[in-house]
Amino acid sequence: FNPVFDALPVTVFETMSRLARETGAINLGQGFPDDPGPEDVRAKAAEAALHGWSQYPPMMGLAGLREAAAAHYARWQGVSLDPEREVMVTSGATEALAGALLALVEPGDEVVLIQPMYDAYLPLALRAGATPRFVRLVPPDWRLDVDAIRAAVGPRTKAVVLNNPLNPAGAVYGREDLEALGAALEGSDAVLIADEVWEHVTFDGRAHVSALAIPALRDRTFKIGSAGKIFAMTGWKVGLVCAAPHLMRVLSRAHQFLTFTTPPSLQEAVAYGLGKDDAWFLDARAALGAKRDRFAAALRAAGFAPLASAGTYFLNLDIAPLGVTDDAAFCERLAREAGVAAIPVSAFYASDKVTTVARFCFAKHDATLDAAAARLAAFR
Amino acid sequence: FNPVFDALPVTVFETMSRLARETGAINLGQGFPDDPGPEDVRAKAAEAALHGWSQYPPMMGLAGLREAAAAHYARWQGVSLDPEREVMVTSGATEALAGALLALVEPGDEVVLIQPMYDAYLPLALRAGATPRFVRLVPPDWRLDVDAIRAAVGPRTKAVVLNNPLNPAGAVYGREDLEALGAALEGSDAVLIADEVWEHVTFDGRAHVSALAIPALRDRTFKIGSAGKIFAMTGWKVGLVCAAPHLMRVLSRAHQFLTFTTPPSLQEAVAYGLGKDDAWFLDARAALGAKRDRFAAALRAAGFAPLASAGTYFLNLDIAPLGVTDDAAFCERLAREAGVAAIPVSAFYASDKVTTVARFCFAKHDATLDAAAARLAAFR
Ligand SMILES: CSCCC(=O)C(=O)O
Ligand SMILES: CSCCC(=O)C(=O)O
Repeated sequence: FNPVFDALPVTVFETMSRLARETGAINLGQGFPDDPGPEDVRAKAAEAALHGWSQYPPMMGLAGLREAAAAHYARWQGVSLDPEREVMVTSGATEALAGALLALVEPGDEVVLIQPMYDAYLPLALRAGATPRFVRLVPPDWRLDVDAIRAAVGPRTKAVVLNNPLNPAGAVYGREDLEALGAALEGSDAVLIADEVWEHVTFDGRAHVSALAIPALRDRTFKIGSAGKIFAMTGWKVGLVCAAPHLMRVLSRAHQFLTFTTPPSLQEAVAYGLGKDDAWFLDARAALGAKRDRFAAALRAAGFAPLASAGTYFLNLDIAPLGVTDDAAFCERLAREAGVAAIPVSAFYASDKVTTVARFCFAKHDATLDAAAARLAAFR
Repeated sequence: FNPVFDALPVTVFETMSRLARETGAINLGQGFPDDPGPEDVRAKAAEAALHGWSQYPPMMGLAGLREAAAAHYARWQGVSLDPEREVMVTSGATEALAGALLALVEPGDEVVLIQPMYDAYLPLALRAGATPRFVRLVPPDWRLDVDAIRAAVGPRTKAVVLNNPLNPAGAVYGREDLEALGAALEGSDAVLIADEVWEHVTFDGRAHVSALAIPALRDRTFKIGSAGKIFAMTGWKVGLVCAAPHLMRVLSRAHQFLTFTTPPSLQEAVAYGLGKDDAWFLDARAALGAKRDRFAAALRAAGFAPLASAGTYFLNLDIAPLGVTDDAAFCERLAREAGVAAIPVSAFYASDKVTTVARFCFAKHDATLDAAAARLAAFR
């Protein structure tokens, strides 16, 4: 078997969700809302499944969705895209990420990965044939260390992967950080794989800045979005990739042979959803922001030390003050003894791990958050 | 860019569908039905999209679908499968194929590809790092050349890819062929990637024999199925992979990072569909068989020489009697001058191409088939 995949354990998200099922713990591990998502978008999918096209859509995605995505990003992020040549639909953001790495990398190339990193990045980079170069960000503020990125980029660097907003950190990097990154990549051949799946999940009135909105990055970036995250329906698996035509061309070849295309009923519904009025998106953010505040306040009241979260579904707990130095063991105990499942942030590092942070998903009903906070308070 | 993907043209299916749109040709190229598929299955998907689970399903697929698939294959193919450990859901058969090759191959390994071959096989094998070894089948009967397969298998062979029923040939290989193949692989490390997406599309009362039903192949086979093909809804992109646990384990790691999971609404509908009564499947086959007969008879009446088709959506025309030796140029002319789009079978060969066969998809309304046959008759 190929050693990259052969050596892998089951993902920490599956493992923790299983532990939660087994122990009856409240599952604040794997990042998904417990709400079914907007009813009108689901109704569109239902109508399209019943009455719409059920055969292959075009390999690049339905024209209607590609146009809707271009219009959406123009409106929300000030990015101007040619829907014909710069937008493609994938079967989820994961496929887009896999395709980008497989399309860019030749064996012997290097890929810069910024830790904490989503669990797919490293195995996909390795399977593509890349040697990883790691950059390490640390709590409490997870400052984007552009100097370290610059130092990690060399003549063999084919890609830098940046997740912004950053899961699990809850950090959101703005225009200044991205401009610094653009300057750092100047003169290199590195493509930025900008995993922006959390682009709509930002709080406190803070707008997401896309890498595509930065002139120095515009033509060297794959921007990856996720309808599942935009509409809080993580099972939908509709990804949106935007990139300059020369990049899109090669990614589309990978897409063609990874999944070829994506169910048209869901594409139609996402096209509809992206056109919802501003208020819907702002309200969704506000609702999630209120959940973050509610959960953080309850934890603080119980004597815990939650870190700041400016975006994503996640709130992190600094567990160093509890004397904890092994977050994985702590999270296992938390599930079994406190009855709350969380994700150890060390799972997002391949080396020099941060081991004193536990990640909680707050995209849950208030009653669930309150119950979890009460259990954690009792445990403490 | 990675040279495998960078060098690829757009697929022949997209190219021909585009030519058909541009020229107004009747599109018998890309293989998809013009019917929307079974209404009850679509209604299930609609209901599940509106009222069902919209968050991540389990990475391996919904338990209900995995159980339904195991029951379906037990009933139809006499294969006994553990739904927990031997069945996985993918985002289409293409993803399963990509995952299998990426999971099995290390750079330097060999993969045996049987030509004519589906267009995804070679680029995926190359991208996985394999050196391809080709076996060549030829019209009119496309006999499975097991001796050539045995000769192509060596100590570095990690996989043999067999599409059965075979697109574009319309050939269906039975128990004897598969047993001979099993014997040929004995003693080797080769895994059989059995692309059985056309398993339900067989004619004249002929039952599909799965590679998993052959004892010598049972534990060395990835069987790949496709709900899109089973229910004639090619856009659905729900794949079904079955394999022994030691194979499934490593494939599931690849799946985890290629798409992670597949929309639950479609999974639920497919689970329902797989349980439809025998008559539905037999009627669907009979209806397609009648289309094959109708189109073949009309072509014969017009003086053409269609080859036999025992399965798939495809009927092939031997164009050698027309003095044609370049099927690609012929198909281009056919679209422009006759107003019918077909696929040149040479597109399914990487070397030593068969260049005298054109493939027509007959999974179309009778009126469409009749109109296409009339155009072809006039062209002749
Ligand atoms: C695909 S399971 C992981 C979901 C997620 O984004 C997270 O929990 O970080
Ligand atoms: C994915 S487009 C090709 C569809 C098909 O199976 C064929 O036409 O052979």
